[in-house]
Amino acid sequence: MKRIAVLSSGGDAPGMNAAIRAVVRKAISEGMEVYGVNHGYAGLVAGDIFPISSRDVGDKISRGGTFLYSARYPEFAKLEGQLAGIEQLKKNGIEGVVVIGGDGSYHGAMRLTEHGFPAVGIPGTIDNDIAGTDFTIGFDTAVNTAVDAIDKLRDTSSSHGRTFVVEVMGRNAGDIALWAGISSGADQIIVPEEGFDINVVAKTIEDDFKKQGKSHHIIVLAEGVMSGVEFAEKLKEAGDTSDLRVTNLGHILRGGSPTARDRVLASRLGAHAVELLKEGRGGLAVGIHNEDIVESPILGTAEENALFSLSEDGKIIVNNPHKARLDFAKLNRSLSR
Amino acid sequence: MKRIAVLSSGGDAPGMNAAIRAVVRKAISEGMEVYGVNHGYAGLVAGDIFPISSRDVGDKISRGGTFLYSARYPEFAKLEGQLAGIEQLKKNGIEGVVVIGGDGSYHGAMRLTEHGFPAVGIPGTIDNDIAGTDFTIGFDTAVNTAVDAIDKLRDTSSSHGRTFVVEVMGRNAGDIALWAGISSGADQIIVPEEGFDINVVAKTIEDDFKKQGKSHHIIVLAEGVMSGVEFAEKLKEAGDTSDLRVTNLGHILRGGSPTARDRVLASRLGAHAVELLKEGRGGLAVGIHNEDIVESPILGTAEENALFSLSEDGKIIVNNPHKARLDFAKLNRSLSR
Amino acid sequence: MKRIAVLSSGGDAPGMNAAIRAVVRKAISEGMEVYGVNHGYAGLVAGDIFPISSRDVGDKISRGGTFLYSARYPEFAKLEGQLAGIEQLKKNGIEGVVVIGGDGSYHGAMRLTEHGFPAVGIPGTIDNDIAGTDFTIGFDTAVNTAVDAIDKLRDTSSSHGRTFVVEVMGRNAGDIALWAGISSGADQIIVPEEGFDINVVAKTIEDDFKKQGKSHHIIVLAEGVMSGVEFAEKLKEAGDTSDLRVTNLGHILRGGSPTARDRVLASRLGAHAVELLKEGRGGLAVGIHNEDIVESPILGTAEENALFSLSEDGKIIVNNPHKARLDFAKLNRSLSR
Amino acid sequence: MKRIAVLSSGGDAPGMNAAIRAVVRKAISEGMEVYGVNHGYAGLVAGDIFPISSRDVGDKISRGGTFLYSARYPEFAKLEGQLAGIEQLKKNGIEGVVVIGGDGSYHGAMRLTEHGFPAVGIPGTIDNDIAGTDFTIGFDTAVNTAVDAIDKLRDTSSSHGRTFVVEVMGRNAGDIALWAGISSGADQIIVPEEGFDINVVAKTIEDDFKKQGKSHHIIVLAEGVMSGVEFAEKLKEAGDTSDLRVTNLGHILRGGSPTARDRVLASRLGAHAVELLKEGRGGLAVGIHNEDIVESPILGTAEENALFSLSEDGKIIVNNPHKARLDFAKLNRSLSR
Repeated sequence: MKRIAVLSSGGDAPGMNAAIRAVVRKAISEGMEVYGVNHGYAGLVAGDIFPISSRDVGDKISRGGTFLYSARYPEFAKLEGQLAGIEQLKKNGIEGVVVIGGDGSYHGAMRLTEHGFPAVGIPGTIDNDIAGTDFTIGFDTAVNTAVDAIDKLRDTSSSHGRTFVVEVMGRNAGDIALWAGISSGADQIIVPEEGFDINVVAKTIEDDFKKQGKSHHIIVLAEGVMSGVEFAEKLKEAGDTSDLRVTNLGHILRGGSPTARDRVLASRLGAHAVELLKEGRGGLAVGIHNEDIVESPILGTAEENALFSLSEDGKIIVNNPHKARLDFAKLNRSLSR
Repeated sequence: MKRIAVLSSGGDAPGMNAAIRAVVRKAISEGMEVYGVNHGYAGLVAGDIFPISSRDVGDKISRGGTFLYSARYPEFAKLEGQLAGIEQLKKNGIEGVVVIGGDGSYHGAMRLTEHGFPAVGIPGTIDNDIAGTDFTIGFDTAVNTAVDAIDKLRDTSSSHGRTFVVEVMGRNAGDIALWAGISSGADQIIVPEEGFDINVVAKTIEDDFKKQGKSHHIIVLAEGVMSGVEFAEKLKEAGDTSDLRVTNLGHILRGGSPTARDRVLASRLGAHAVELLKEGRGGLAVGIHNEDIVESPILGTAEENALFSLSEDGKIIVNNPHKARLDFAKLNRSLSR
Repeated sequence: MKRIAVLSSGGDAPGMNAAIRAVVRKAISEGMEVYGVNHGYAGLVAGDIFPISSRDVGDKISRGGTFLYSARYPEFAKLEGQLAGIEQLKKNGIEGVVVIGGDGSYHGAMRLTEHGFPAVGIPGTIDNDIAGTDFTIGFDTAVNTAVDAIDKLRDTSSSHGRTFVVEVMGRNAGDIALWAGISSGADQIIVPEEGFDINVVAKTIEDDFKKQGKSHHIIVLAEGVMSGVEFAEKLKEAGDTSDLRVTNLGHILRGGSPTARDRVLASRLGAHAVELLKEGRGGLAVGIHNEDIVESPILGTAEENALFSLSEDGKIIVNNPHKARLDFAKLNRSLSR
Repeated sequence: MKRIAVLSSGGDAPGMNAAIRAVVRKAISEGMEVYGVNHGYAGLVAGDIFPISSRDVGDKISRGGTFLYSARYPEFAKLEGQLAGIEQLKKNGIEGVVVIGGDGSYHGAMRLTEHGFPAVGIPGTIDNDIAGTDFTIGFDTAVNTAVDAIDKLRDTSSSHGRTFVVEVMGRNAGDIALWAGISSGADQIIVPEEGFDINVVAKTIEDDFKKQGKSHHIIVLAEGVMSGVEFAEKLKEAGDTSDLRVTNLGHILRGGSPTARDRVLASRLGAHAVELLKEGRGGLAVGIHNEDIVESPILGTAEENALFSLSEDGKIIVNNPHKARLDFAKLNRSLSR
């Protein structure tokens, strides 16, 4: 393979730039040329493609976001979009593609591979909700950003004896809430993977202030459960009488300079994706498992260890979906009183 | 004066601990004893008062919040509350009081002084909206926290070509929005002290993306104008078609380790408050003006340079209220394109 | 077991407070009482021992250092010291001990266990050089602090076209250098576990500036190799003509609020140490391996999976010593040009 | 004036990019074109000059260092160097110049003005040692970086009961040491503007540990006094018996994302420099005094309020040199026990 392309797709995450840098530098060190694609699959179809040099990625390892921009582009699920993209790859002499993003991005990579252009996926999202990897690029940074914010909220909640409901991102996954909750010494963590009883939540607040003598109460809430405002309303309906405030950390978690761990992960995954393409292998997603870099088929059978299978009626089945650390929720309950 | 007390009142702000430390250490170095009062005027009335040593404030300079807790306590505006507080001062042998907080805190300090207990106010609030000082304790930290958050939002807004409305605190003042807006290179700053035309705001977004070729658009909105959600709705009504998101930085701005400037300011103001009490002077508020530490009568006539006057019908008039830097808004307009 | 003690020993590390908090809270949740010991084994021998409540560890999770203080105390290697310590344990009715620290701390824990007081070790050091765990508490924070500092140095080295030799801690281990080096996009990483040729180092600097067109050159040097000043002298002797500066990050790496990962690790390890003591098990060290919490015998045979063995002449043999990630050094070479 | 140039010179400082951005954007908003000069006066002479657009400075406000690079270039003090620079200005149709830097940079600006090319200086250095301004760009960031580092050192010095000598930059000025010392609650601050008695320093350490019961002792030392290593040797000679460590914060202080205050200052100064050039005025340096933006003649008589005068034998006299806040040193002594 002489020339490969790299693009970022879906929601952006800190460390995507570090991954792009790794792909570019590793490919060049292996004698390949690298092209960048702006705006994900949308840019691929539109031909927003240009050569990237080693110098172009200098000083990018520490920058949040993705300098190749990102976009969701559902049109790429259709054959027409895929063929338009392939046309552009051919036009630019590109033989393989690295795609950084989430599930949707992986499916695009699968399609490109089926059309004869080996493509490899790299898991990039703060949500940590992708199969085939213990951790996604951006997760560690998002958790640390959340912890930093909750540490600040604790200052002010302690000063005033308040209860704070802190909503954090994570789509349907509770990973950010669980890690940030334990790390910030949250009094309660509420995640979609685990049920909760609003009356118990309200009672715990009351007990903490009255019986435990706590000077504040912080509840970390995963957005996948419901919004912080909605949760606070339910709390009040359940009889909570504390001085209650809601904060949604929102998109702050998506930005910022990546942590060391995200930079190392991005560097390792980016380099490995290039190694796979060098061997002409595509239709794979790279990941980290037990500190080792691994790869899995994106689509296939569960026996093949593929991330996704197709049911008879064409629906996508996730094999071994990422599981939240519910043991963390339990651990936190024993550490928060 | 042999023994003084210190309390924090109203909304907490980073640097209050540094001010308390300065009061304690300075007073001890001047041969006085210091008592702390928990929970502001409420704790004063309730007798939640205890001696503080020099060691008790060790390592407190870097901590956000206030370890003496804070509270709003409107009951102290009434004579009954004041007399109950004075009873406690007498009981503990306290001859003077330092109060860290905002306007309401100052009025309490005035009352204590009128009752024969000299009290001095120190301006502590992130809002920077207090007369008699160029800057309040906590403002510099809040601005830097806002800038750090907006820098993160810019990462993700750039990646996706989005518009962000970022709501920041400040009560009726636009100071945080103006300083954070300039510092973060905001595309537009909306503050209560200045009018705005929603159609111009929407048009500016459109022009920035289409004519200026910008990859993102960030609007910093002071909470005194309206909420971010409300503003976004108005923008959409005005025809904005951009990918618009709203983030409310909320209470995060109230926490965190204070900046160097806030620590220096708190140290200087705390020490000066003690010097005034040592001279038996009360009914004053300290502040910084043109880098010098100054003091002003809390209540009096405009000629006396007092912060507040009373009208004939007993209403409070603010003499020389703090003015927002509208020249910053103008400056930003010339730097944002 | 009704009552246990906790102490920190050896060099301090960010996250030790989080581990102490976890030990205290977990033990209390299991119905045990907890005593703290100040100044490590020295304080144990001196009887500097006191009860800790759940409230005492409130807000400690985010604090650097160790509020129980730490100290090196070689006297505890002798029987006399051990017996004096045991006397104190008996006097205070303490039945088991948790020790947070490094190798020396583990040996003390072994001795206590041999004397009938089950003790469990928790790996706390920034150096990541302890057998029986993939990561030590404090390592992730130290790496992130180093990366943050090197990011700053890159700003100024870029502005001036300079070479920087950045010395980082790690005792005989290159872990901090390797992780921080990859994360900061270092141009060269020099660690004790790998040889280096000073002429190649000098030549690489020259090539980077002249052939690669780089605007700066950063070398991350582990202290286990030699000091930064010494290394710079050797570089000059080898003919380096660049504008060369040396910075030793020094003790900054030992401080600061712990990262989320260190807080989670400390929480999990602290809780597991208590679970082992609850079962009456001692002479063990806890650790993390492949994201799971594990425990190993401190002293024993390699077959028993013990961390250390004793040779016939009484010398300590480290079974399966922690190995540096030399694959990271290799990876970095392919990403730095 | 239709076209101006901007360059950075001397040691770099955080906020220089924000100043460049302000110059570029303000000039464009006033209908002028802007050219950037790389590597300061060296690049001017070498003709390393290129047009800068408004987009080129997008996202630069938050970046440390200077993307125009900086250099010391003593050759510009000679007529030959100046004429070569002017040749380049003519060749590129440039009519005025903004120079960001320190004293040496100002003199170059003076020469350009004398040769008919109005030039305006902007004070950019972390040292805060420039006449004509209360604060220089980069000072606030450097102080905050120092405070952040000393906060970390305090964690570890508390854990071990250690004394730390922390050396900070500042050339001959003690400003960074004074502000960082007060802010970090340093036990002693040693600056070149004030004498010190090493025996008193040693005695203070002893008293603090033995009489005051402090758990650590931190001395902030300005590099203008002597090196930290030298100071520590003197302390030991004076009989200090504490566990003493030395840390030199070094070049870290020169980097990092600028604080809000530095960004606001840089924005205001950059815009004002352009306003002066627009009026055809040169030979001036801008600054901040009592929160207002001001300008002063670089060379002239003291009566004209010029920053520098020439003595009869051609030596440079600094009128009203920047003075260190020795009142801060005194304040700190009353707050550190």
